[in-house]
Amino acid sequence: MKICLIGSGNVGTHLGKALVLSGHEIVQVFSRSSAHAETLVKQLTDLLGPLPQHPHVITDIQDLEKQSDLYIICVSDRAISSVIAQLPTDLSGIVVHTSGSTSMDVFAELPNTHPNLKYGVFYPLQTFTKGKEIDFNVIPLALEAQDEEVYQVLETLAKPLSQNVFPCSSKQREALHIAAVFACNFSNYFFHEAEKLLERNQLSFDLVRPLILEMATKAQVISPRFGQTGPAVRKDWNIVQKHLDFLDNDPETDPRIRRMYEELSVMISEMNDDKA
Amino acid sequence: MKICLIGSGNVGTHLGKALVLSGHEIVQVFSRSSAHAETLVKQLTDLLGPLPQHPHVITDIQDLEKQSDLYIICVSDRAISSVIAQLPTDLSGIVVHTSGSTSMDVFAELPNTHPNLKYGVFYPLQTFTKGKEIDFNVIPLALEAQDEEVYQVLETLAKPLSQNVFPCSSKQREALHIAAVFACNFSNYFFHEAEKLLERNQLSFDLVRPLILEMATKAQVISPRFGQTGPAVRKDWNIVQKHLDFLDNDPETDPRIRRMYEELSVMISEMNDDKA
Repeated sequence: MKICLIGSGNVGTHLGKALVLSGHEIVQVFSRSSAHAETLVKQLTDLLGPLPQHPHVITDIQDLEKQSDLYIICVSDRAISSVIAQLPTDLSGIVVHTSGSTSMDVFAELPNTHPNLKYGVFYPLQTFTKGKEIDFNVIPLALEAQDEEVYQVLETLAKPLSQNVFPCSSKQREALHIAAVFACNFSNYFFHEAEKLLERNQLSFDLVRPLILEMATKAQVISPRFGQTGPAVRKDWNIVQKHLDFLDNDPETDPRIRRMYEELSVMISEMNDDKA
Repeated sequence: MKICLIGSGNVGTHLGKALVLSGHEIVQVFSRSSAHAETLVKQLTDLLGPLPQHPHVITDIQDLEKQSDLYIICVSDRAISSVIAQLPTDLSGIVVHTSGSTSMDVFAELPNTHPNLKYGVFYPLQTFTKGKEIDFNVIPLALEAQDEEVYQVLETLAKPLSQNVFPCSSKQREALHIAAVFACNFSNYFFHEAEKLLERNQLSFDLVRPLILEMATKAQVISPRFGQTGPAVRKDWNIVQKHLDFLDNDPETDPRIRRMYEELSVMISEMNDDKA
């Protein structure tokens, strides 16, 4: 399939590589910054040696190749609607965005403005970090499409990339994105709070790394509702109070973290009540 | 070394197995419930076949073997001081507890009441789940002791069990325990919140499992302060607001989680400010 990437950030980079490795042709990479786009093109070229057709860098969206099959918008969420509005009106094929929390409705006007362009959503659920390789095959790909025909095209594209391709409405996709924020972003933030507390006490973050890995490994096979450990789920209020006292006596503890420790402990203590 | 285990919960089970595998002799297992103690003894026996000396189950703490080298208190934190008070006064050797948040001061009266008993702390930093095997070798073991001589004995015991044995004051140990609550218990709780949100939207928790594993794997090599991803650290308030609106419109979302989403987003957004 001939594909144009619109955007050259983390999602574009990881998705672009997976597509090239899957045998697709990246025809163009658009970025307002030609340096960013060149970096991505170089990574794609490095993957397979000189590609049959070297991707072109474009910095003006009006230069998008008209004869592509697929246009993948992988810009920041707030830029998506403006990118759509600027798409050349004579494009044909399919355009998708890759955002968790942008409804497919963002394309609602497209049939009026771009009569030959169909649309959909191609959302890889993963935390991408530039420079860190990732096994794309385990990344869930949430698909949504204007109609069944477009869905089939996206599914055909997606299945060789990932073992977990599934249909997902815009509302479900937003719930999935929020769940990912809970499970991933908030957890990492608490890792960071642990890191700061350890540093303030001349201890290394290395000490909790095995614990983090064990917890995440356990969550692969056990429901978190049954994997909860720690003083709060045991309703060991004596320990919870000791920890609160410790945080109260530490002038460098953010009062918000102290409040959160207390509130989360109450919420965790209620987990077993739910089961009863 | 001849060892008595006082308590037969998760810590006693995992530590007892590691000690047996390391060639030590578990002489007795005390539990108020003989069934619990028998279960632990059976697991120890299963490890090596019939042990040279089969551990005895005792349910009266006064029956503790006088000739042991080490008494390991692995009961719930709130029971530690009462166990210490009940130790036969003619014991000799070393007694340790295994608690993160109990100061070594809990033993302060021991020299007056138990003149032949030395004391210390032997704290394995891990989340133990009964029935789930664990690689004890990667578990950090935090040691504290009454004096250098006792420390050397505990260190000699600990080093074959774990590659990460280190001295740790009572205050540091409490900080470490709180850090573990942040990094492990709070993260698992947010996994659970993700699970509930996904279920309410007919989505499987399986979808975020790869994300969780990737995040925890990343935290093994990157400082969490540099590994943060998601809308808040990008200060993408548009997405944060969309998520808050979603949670507001979901009658089953706990208002505490909604408030926490908002507050954590603000805190996460400040992470890069710290770096500047």
